[in-house]
Amino acid sequence: MSDPTTPAPSTSGISRRGLFGLAGAGVVGLGVGAAVDRFVLPPTASAQENAAVYPFFGEHQSGIVTPAQDRLHFASYDVADISRDELVELLQDWSAAAALMTQGKEAGQFGAVSGNYDAPPDDTGEALGLPASGLTITIGFGPTLFQTADGTDRFGIASRRPAALVDLPHFPADMLQDALSGGDLCIQACSDDPQVAVHAIRNLSRIAFGRANIRWSQLGFGRTSSTTKAQQTPRNLFGFKDGTANIKAEDTGVLSDQVWASGSDGADWMTGGSYLVSRKIRMTIETWDRTSLREQEAVIGRTKGEGAPYSGGTEFSEPDFAATGQGGAPLIAKDAHVRLSHPDQNSGAQLLRRGYNFVDGNDELGRLNAGLFFIAYQRDPREQFIPIQMNLAKNDAMNEYIRHVGSAIFAVPPGAHQGGYVGETLFGA
Amino acid sequence: MSDPTTPAPSTSGISRRGLFGLAGAGVVGLGVGAAVDRFVLPPTASAQENAAVYPFFGEHQSGIVTPAQDRLHFASYDVADISRDELVELLQDWSAAAALMTQGKEAGQFGAVSGNYDAPPDDTGEALGLPASGLTITIGFGPTLFQTADGTDRFGIASRRPAALVDLPHFPADMLQDALSGGDLCIQACSDDPQVAVHAIRNLSRIAFGRANIRWSQLGFGRTSSTTKAQQTPRNLFGFKDGTANIKAEDTGVLSDQVWASGSDGADWMTGGSYLVSRKIRMTIETWDRTSLREQEAVIGRTKGEGAPYSGGTEFSEPDFAATGQGGAPLIAKDAHVRLSHPDQNSGAQLLRRGYNFVDGNDELGRLNAGLFFIAYQRDPREQFIPIQMNLAKNDAMNEYIRHVGSAIFAVPPGAHQGGYVGETLFGA
Repeated sequence: MSDPTTPAPSTSGISRRGLFGLAGAGVVGLGVGAAVDRFVLPPTASAQENAAVYPFFGEHQSGIVTPAQDRLHFASYDVADISRDELVELLQDWSAAAALMTQGKEAGQFGAVSGNYDAPPDDTGEALGLPASGLTITIGFGPTLFQTADGTDRFGIASRRPAALVDLPHFPADMLQDALSGGDLCIQACSDDPQVAVHAIRNLSRIAFGRANIRWSQLGFGRTSSTTKAQQTPRNLFGFKDGTANIKAEDTGVLSDQVWASGSDGADWMTGGSYLVSRKIRMTIETWDRTSLREQEAVIGRTKGEGAPYSGGTEFSEPDFAATGQGGAPLIAKDAHVRLSHPDQNSGAQLLRRGYNFVDGNDELGRLNAGLFFIAYQRDPREQFIPIQMNLAKNDAMNEYIRHVGSAIFAVPPGAHQGGYVGETLFGA
Repeated sequence: MSDPTTPAPSTSGISRRGLFGLAGAGVVGLGVGAAVDRFVLPPTASAQENAAVYPFFGEHQSGIVTPAQDRLHFASYDVADISRDELVELLQDWSAAAALMTQGKEAGQFGAVSGNYDAPPDDTGEALGLPASGLTITIGFGPTLFQTADGTDRFGIASRRPAALVDLPHFPADMLQDALSGGDLCIQACSDDPQVAVHAIRNLSRIAFGRANIRWSQLGFGRTSSTTKAQQTPRNLFGFKDGTANIKAEDTGVLSDQVWASGSDGADWMTGGSYLVSRKIRMTIETWDRTSLREQEAVIGRTKGEGAPYSGGTEFSEPDFAATGQGGAPLIAKDAHVRLSHPDQNSGAQLLRRGYNFVDGNDELGRLNAGLFFIAYQRDPREQFIPIQMNLAKNDAMNEYIRHVGSAIFAVPPGAHQGGYVGETLFGA
């Protein structure tokens, strides 16, 4: 793969040490000989497993074509009534902390800050001693950052809103909840250790205090797509492999065509960026689990075990939508998910998916509140997510078993250069 | 460690294969030559990491002194209006499925059951191809299983309710929500892979359909205690090490005294079992994060980095509660958590803790809904959890930063013998 922003993970095992050394000072200040609280932490048992370290700086933000990590903490933020300069400062602060945390360091000083025991530590501490665990932090800008619903140009950037950053239309059967939708800013934190992902969102939220506030957030516990050819296809909570036909990091030509925004799209500052659409999709798994295997496979258009198209072959065989069986009926039904979502049925449009399974406890009827937190990256939602989802929302046999309850869209700017910040191409020019 | 029910994990890499072989039948039934969907799944990338396999059958249930796994899915159930025989059947069905899943197998047939493509698969499928991942399934009985609040003896076991299975008293400052508390039955599923833990709870809930229904459930993403001396002490969301002084599996004498129920306690059928208390403890982490390091460490009574007692030494040094500093003030404050929870302050009572961090999204004010899902095993809550918690609830400096919002107690019977079921000592006699 030639993409310079997603090298093979280093396994140097950088760990969260060394920023600390003064924390014993308070005890010493009490006049007793308590041990000075120095950090020489041995690597944890998982240090070897979670040794991947991805760069924060680069042409593209990490967390898009990076090999999909196992865990997600995603947060959407409302920006407070602050000035443009204050917003820029927030993005600078976030970038600086993200550059540290993605390298396995704390968000700031963990112990007594500048020897001051009467201040809170800069870092909240729960990831201390844990390796970087493949952490990526990806920052995006929602439509309302550019212009609020009443048309206010809060930060003087309304004229630079990319045409591709549309307000998503209403799709048939949408049951969106406002409290699970939208947002001025987003942060996607992916890691192989949930404690590391949670630590990142928590500390970035803390840094934003008074400037931006979490609007909604989502934990995901199992990735549902591979983003590299080396990764096996994982399963979603329908029990089916998901993401077999996903765009992979190795498909550099497809990435250029379908994922990375280009200056020729009309917003220069987004060159090397991408557009993120998230959808919180609740699955009615209890109903699904009472459905026959025949129905389940017909809905998907693939076998449940191997994940092969119903037209035959193995997982990575191309589906043959023309193949027919007894009585001339198509082997892959007209309303099968694999047919309706296939590029051939969508003018060649594809998505780079990075979704995660979720279980948010249970509802009052004792059903697991479970499903898919869908994330897709693309060059232009007007040509990709929107027509594909319109097609699915109208026709997909799967609709009987899902409910879209949350939705958001964000422009994900290109990566920052060393010492710069995410958003500099928009605000710095 | 001499406990026969918790051997060192086998690394034979048992995986979820082989129960399938007929799933292609439906396609073949359509009259076409689609590939038969056989399973020869290669091991996943994580197979080596998650190869631990623990026995389901044994003197004690697994999941108590088993080395604490990284992830939790816990569910509490209300039992429907069923007969004693039907309840026994449910426990038998749960035990049979648990015995399979803990060994890395599916809960039942994954593909077409007995060749019948028009039935749902016995297993929901999302863990297919994943290793056992250290899965343990631990089943408990709540007080209301023995006798409902209005005194009804639903299953003819009211007279056999152990005296130690008390209704927990109200503790000062409790803010318990009924929807997060209590339950007739519980299942604790722990695994190093959350998809495996979720798969277990989902399939056991499905098996219970019409007989028991989830009352509340909780996912946990980071263990907060070590249960063996080989495990490093993890950190809770206050950023402090948690569980330094936990009972460890190697402390067999302490286990006998403090964890395992004995026939001499008055309920023969609980011999080799234990009593589980769970508390959902929300932490007001935003407030905590704005508190000085001095205050944070004073509240805990330990340093944040090393986790050493404030009286000096290193993590595993015994706290010296008599040590004083300037002006004769105790180094470990009178209201410090480490002091109030120490066995010396509680007539020697200890708990085997197995808690997990949680983040359940955020509240409407944008604060993370985060905290500790506390789980403790013990021989008799009347002598252990209740007096300790009464002491803490009245005096602990930490109370300013936490809120107990859920609570439950369960009698966890001894392990089943091969071919038997959990609860047989109660129902089978």
